[in-house]
Amino acid sequence: MSKIPVGILGATGMVGQMYTRLLAFHPWFETAYVAASPRSAGKSYREALAGRRYLDGPSPAFSGEGSGGEADLLSLTVEDANDVGRAAAAFKAGNCAFVFSALEMDKEETKKLEEAYAAAGIPVVSNASANRWAPDVPMLIAEVNPHHADIIPLQRKNRGWDRGFIVVKPNCSLQSYMTPLWALLKAGYEVKRLLVTTMQAVSGAGYPGVPGWDLIDNLLPYIPGEEEKSEGEPLKILGALKDGAIVDAAFPAISAHCNRVPVSDGHTACVSLEFGAKKPSVEEVKRIWTAFRGLPQEQDFPMAPRRPIIVLEEQDRPQPRKDRGADKAMAVSVGRVRPCKVFDLRFTALSHNTVRGAAGGGILNAELLKYKGYLG
Amino acid sequence: MSKIPVGILGATGMVGQMYTRLLAFHPWFETAYVAASPRSAGKSYREALAGRRYLDGPSPAFSGEGSGGEADLLSLTVEDANDVGRAAAAFKAGNCAFVFSALEMDKEETKKLEEAYAAAGIPVVSNASANRWAPDVPMLIAEVNPHHADIIPLQRKNRGWDRGFIVVKPNCSLQSYMTPLWALLKAGYEVKRLLVTTMQAVSGAGYPGVPGWDLIDNLLPYIPGEEEKSEGEPLKILGALKDGAIVDAAFPAISAHCNRVPVSDGHTACVSLEFGAKKPSVEEVKRIWTAFRGLPQEQDFPMAPRRPIIVLEEQDRPQPRKDRGADKAMAVSVGRVRPCKVFDLRFTALSHNTVRGAAGGGILNAELLKYKGYLG
Amino acid sequence: MSKIPVGILGATGMVGQMYTRLLAFHPWFETAYVAASPRSAGKSYREALAGRRYLDGPSPAFSGEGSGGEADLLSLTVEDANDVGRAAAAFKAGNCAFVFSALEMDKEETKKLEEAYAAAGIPVVSNASANRWAPDVPMLIAEVNPHHADIIPLQRKNRGWDRGFIVVKPNCSLQSYMTPLWALLKAGYEVKRLLVTTMQAVSGAGYPGVPGWDLIDNLLPYIPGEEEKSEGEPLKILGALKDGAIVDAAFPAISAHCNRVPVSDGHTACVSLEFGAKKPSVEEVKRIWTAFRGLPQEQDFPMAPRRPIIVLEEQDRPQPRKDRGADKAMAVSVGRVRPCKVFDLRFTALSHNTVRGAAGGGILNAELLKYKGYLG
Amino acid sequence: MSKIPVGILGATGMVGQMYTRLLAFHPWFETAYVAASPRSAGKSYREALAGRRYLDGPSPAFSGEGSGGEADLLSLTVEDANDVGRAAAAFKAGNCAFVFSALEMDKEETKKLEEAYAAAGIPVVSNASANRWAPDVPMLIAEVNPHHADIIPLQRKNRGWDRGFIVVKPNCSLQSYMTPLWALLKAGYEVKRLLVTTMQAVSGAGYPGVPGWDLIDNLLPYIPGEEEKSEGEPLKILGALKDGAIVDAAFPAISAHCNRVPVSDGHTACVSLEFGAKKPSVEEVKRIWTAFRGLPQEQDFPMAPRRPIIVLEEQDRPQPRKDRGADKAMAVSVGRVRPCKVFDLRFTALSHNTVRGAAGGGILNAELLKYKGYLG
Repeated sequence: MSKIPVGILGATGMVGQMYTRLLAFHPWFETAYVAASPRSAGKSYREALAGRRYLDGPSPAFSGEGSGGEADLLSLTVEDANDVGRAAAAFKAGNCAFVFSALEMDKEETKKLEEAYAAAGIPVVSNASANRWAPDVPMLIAEVNPHHADIIPLQRKNRGWDRGFIVVKPNCSLQSYMTPLWALLKAGYEVKRLLVTTMQAVSGAGYPGVPGWDLIDNLLPYIPGEEEKSEGEPLKILGALKDGAIVDAAFPAISAHCNRVPVSDGHTACVSLEFGAKKPSVEEVKRIWTAFRGLPQEQDFPMAPRRPIIVLEEQDRPQPRKDRGADKAMAVSVGRVRPCKVFDLRFTALSHNTVRGAAGGGILNAELLKYKGYLG
Repeated sequence: MSKIPVGILGATGMVGQMYTRLLAFHPWFETAYVAASPRSAGKSYREALAGRRYLDGPSPAFSGEGSGGEADLLSLTVEDANDVGRAAAAFKAGNCAFVFSALEMDKEETKKLEEAYAAAGIPVVSNASANRWAPDVPMLIAEVNPHHADIIPLQRKNRGWDRGFIVVKPNCSLQSYMTPLWALLKAGYEVKRLLVTTMQAVSGAGYPGVPGWDLIDNLLPYIPGEEEKSEGEPLKILGALKDGAIVDAAFPAISAHCNRVPVSDGHTACVSLEFGAKKPSVEEVKRIWTAFRGLPQEQDFPMAPRRPIIVLEEQDRPQPRKDRGADKAMAVSVGRVRPCKVFDLRFTALSHNTVRGAAGGGILNAELLKYKGYLG
Repeated sequence: MSKIPVGILGATGMVGQMYTRLLAFHPWFETAYVAASPRSAGKSYREALAGRRYLDGPSPAFSGEGSGGEADLLSLTVEDANDVGRAAAAFKAGNCAFVFSALEMDKEETKKLEEAYAAAGIPVVSNASANRWAPDVPMLIAEVNPHHADIIPLQRKNRGWDRGFIVVKPNCSLQSYMTPLWALLKAGYEVKRLLVTTMQAVSGAGYPGVPGWDLIDNLLPYIPGEEEKSEGEPLKILGALKDGAIVDAAFPAISAHCNRVPVSDGHTACVSLEFGAKKPSVEEVKRIWTAFRGLPQEQDFPMAPRRPIIVLEEQDRPQPRKDRGADKAMAVSVGRVRPCKVFDLRFTALSHNTVRGAAGGGILNAELLKYKGYLG
Repeated sequence: MSKIPVGILGATGMVGQMYTRLLAFHPWFETAYVAASPRSAGKSYREALAGRRYLDGPSPAFSGEGSGGEADLLSLTVEDANDVGRAAAAFKAGNCAFVFSALEMDKEETKKLEEAYAAAGIPVVSNASANRWAPDVPMLIAEVNPHHADIIPLQRKNRGWDRGFIVVKPNCSLQSYMTPLWALLKAGYEVKRLLVTTMQAVSGAGYPGVPGWDLIDNLLPYIPGEEEKSEGEPLKILGALKDGAIVDAAFPAISAHCNRVPVSDGHTACVSLEFGAKKPSVEEVKRIWTAFRGLPQEQDFPMAPRRPIIVLEEQDRPQPRKDRGADKAMAVSVGRVRPCKVFDLRFTALSHNTVRGAAGGGILNAELLKYKGYLG
């Protein structure tokens, strides 16, 4: 059975490269179209990557010996990501069924370009923040709000698009606590307030990203735009479909302190939660998290971790280098679950920001969309 | 005018070495007696430090060309810290007016040893946590609760000591937010709740401390005992002298997440505060902090920073490597002062853990005690 | 077909744990016996590892879903490594055909203990340096001097051992340039002198190893014993079997500067070579290295990298984090091949010190010994 | 006595900022003119530095309480570095007696701009590499070749300049071994060959410089242009003044491997030397280095370290974080002095790259030029 050919917009960036790695042995999808900025256009992907291969070794997700897969990939011609017509032609020719957008350009440009792809009939599964706040664009975590995908028909109608659409994923900083939060809500425990301090990896800033000078014997107590995203996006993810739009949830109130630390990959979050009247015990929380499964697990999607939340009992875990790779780097690791002296519960959570929080999360969203029939 | 000769218990450890550096050019005190474990006893301090000189360069506090000061220091004979009689003899001979305790031994042993020094008539200015919870032992931050020193006469009476006594300083993890917290309380703003996440430097664990393996591309979400200290000690510092004991304050409720990060020196804290009914504006908070002066500033103690709290306006400050050295490494640097989405106020605070949070803080306490007449 | 049961001495250390990871999915061998210090003896391997699991994620060598493999491994009872009788009983019972020695004890103790295992009939494939200098103990790199294994019968005769024997592997610091050096010699190019500066990873020092304090914004220009090993061991590896002993090669003269750098895994070496009269061009050198295959490749041993030497053309490679994992972390990566201004050739080489340079190299040696019929 | 007013070209860069720090309390010079790129021109220096203050704390060289020095400095107006006329006017008005060039622009542009300043009558003491290879431009290390400054009259004549001239300093990578090398030559020991591997700090690449992504759990085995400079520049420094030009020395032959490591400041070099027929013992080498003094020491220049070469006896020193600050960060620290197995002598050397190797070295050169009467 042949695989679905997919395109990657922003294929030469750090997240774009991660997409090609994770797709290298994917059972459903294969990279068939790569696009980047005009200065890479026309080169082979191999040439375009010269001096810009950020990642090491084989894919952490689907290892094995490919049938010349990498050679095929590297010989693809890089297209100009601004040339939507080129992509539309590939789409029509059956060479690009949908695109992953890992565009790193200015917000307004990205927004318009993703809309142009969708208008041209091409589904866009995006990592960029540009379209996250449109009320008819679902912001998906496949384990949390898969039903938000069902706003797609309405989005198409709103926009006058026939086959194209846009779905987005949320910011990488909140992935480590969003699934644990959702698991508690789903189990019937209201969460009123959430205070989180993140210690985020440098890969979250792309490449060249944060200067080395600022990360030796140092950390940065500020990441532009990150706290706003961490505070606002969860409410959309937890929101309800109402009258053709996603209406933000009212709770929890969230306050985020976001820091950059000298770690390559893996965002860590220290979280304190205040429950509503009904408060679970620490043991009950661990049971809920350990037992939690979402649609990706029920349907056994290829990119889905078997256990979306791994509860660690060792006092000094999770740690970025040691736990970020758990279950294809797609699981969230949670540890230090204990009562909070100010709120009710506190814990430390970790997720791999360029896999779970970026390319891997995007692929899981695409698997969800395929399952739901939105990818043709 | 001759200087007061002081002893250092635990002189070969990281904090002990920092004491000798900071005292090298101190105008009031001079290192005259060094004591360590039995295996160092009898050696010259130079020999005892061979292969164990952890610190670099000249003292960050009182630089200048000493009159052969370092040579004199290194030729001191190291005494056995367990030999209280030896110290008592030095005390009587006028060669050791009081001791700084930087002992790193087991809590119970340290407690007893410090008590033995005090019983022998020698004032003990301690960094160790062993005696922190005795109700008649003041836990001093010279800018915050200098009046707690006045429990000393009562302590002597309780214990049957004539001249000796014990004062302690709190844990290094809370020094960065304790003075800012106090400045707000003093200005009349009640603080109900405080949630803090710390990112602490490795020197806080002494030497050899945290293995390098655990701090490369990594952080540790746990420091044994640190959260309990961070949550409990502020309440004693803010407590009241009542009926011959320090009675803990009732507020604020504190919850601490303590992490170890790959930074050499400088503990960073992300703090969220909930005020009582009266809530200052961000601008008012900055004004209070910038204007705050304590007794050490009013009396111009040698180790006192001119400004105990430095408010930084740049969005990405304070940073450990760049700000830990501020004002002899004795000032607290505070930045990112802004409203909190869950509580009222949030900010990031930084202090140098082995200077302000250890040896420098101990020296400042000794300056306070001398000012108050407790050092003879 | 059932696997050969193997034992691991020093199973709770960093290298011991790496052995269990690499063996988890090994097609020939399976971990059946784990031994460590007396304080771990009697515990389950799971208990013995509590708070001491140094490694992350799945094995880099043979990934895949095991049939409960890890659970079986963790439920093994840890034996006392000093109890040779226990191992001999397991050997007789068919539960431990040979042992990997990752002992970290004192040299003389290790030497005697390894000899006791061999005397008890148990082949010892060792990582320790204790027995490296016995003239009848082969120091094997499977691609370089597999024929040295054939001294085993003579070793047995010398020692009066029937089935047991000892083979060792060389120090991790020289693995990155030893195969490239050998490939040139084999191609007929004499090497007169070799000057190398290494930048070595912290895992080379085991755990807890190098204190974090010494590796933040810092490096150490000295590693005890490392330069002597780096200079002497190559000459034994390149030596000849003569009159029942391995006689050191006379060349090349080697000078090593060994440094510790803040890298978790992966030793990097900057090498300058002086050839004899016949000098290959840079292009010829690259051809030789790229084409080089040893016995492990010819016989397709499971742990063998397909290409023992990977020549990188990018100017800024190899890099530890990005290249150490190449080909199951068993390949040596070489880059910056260029003429030397003082000697003839210079290059930078990298190998993974706890895989290629320790546990993986040990397994490859065992594969070689099995192939040659020495493992029963 | 009033200070000499000096200008800094490239004042907003990392080296430019270091100049202002080191000059803050300089007894002879004061920063009176700051120039940078057109986008900073017209702003106050304070505004121009907003978000770009790379350095921490007070000057490492001349600490003390300035008379409002920093406030005066920060209120200077930044001039356009391309506007030579503006500088010439300041020169004529007595507000800028000479300039330090820390320009970071393209080589050809820098070369022309520095020449234009000199042509306008303004002496240029440069850190840039642009003019290093003009045979009439001296490349000065004040302890090594102060007599090369005496080519200035000839340079002026060659170029038709009346008062202006250009002197340069060599690359930061070679400062740690150049003075030790010179001390041996001066003592009568010929050096035939020198093989060096450097481990260089990130500040050597300026700001933003090397991406953090490339320096976490990693090192880079390549620095563009650095090996060529390290190999060629020493020969000019050791060259002779002959027929109005500096003629390169013939020896030693030098081969350099240059690496970037995760260290903020301080370049470390592992050096092996081959002497001529006359070979000093290790003890003799240490004696020579410890006793070495140059003109800056003899004349007691303000920026001169008292001991240009500090010989460390501890086996694991020098280390960047601990030794880079030695003697105002101007001394070279040397350790591990021992015989070489391939050549005659080996050692590890360290110098602070942005102080000794950049701004501090430039200031010392200016002190030399003032002493020699070339600065008016």
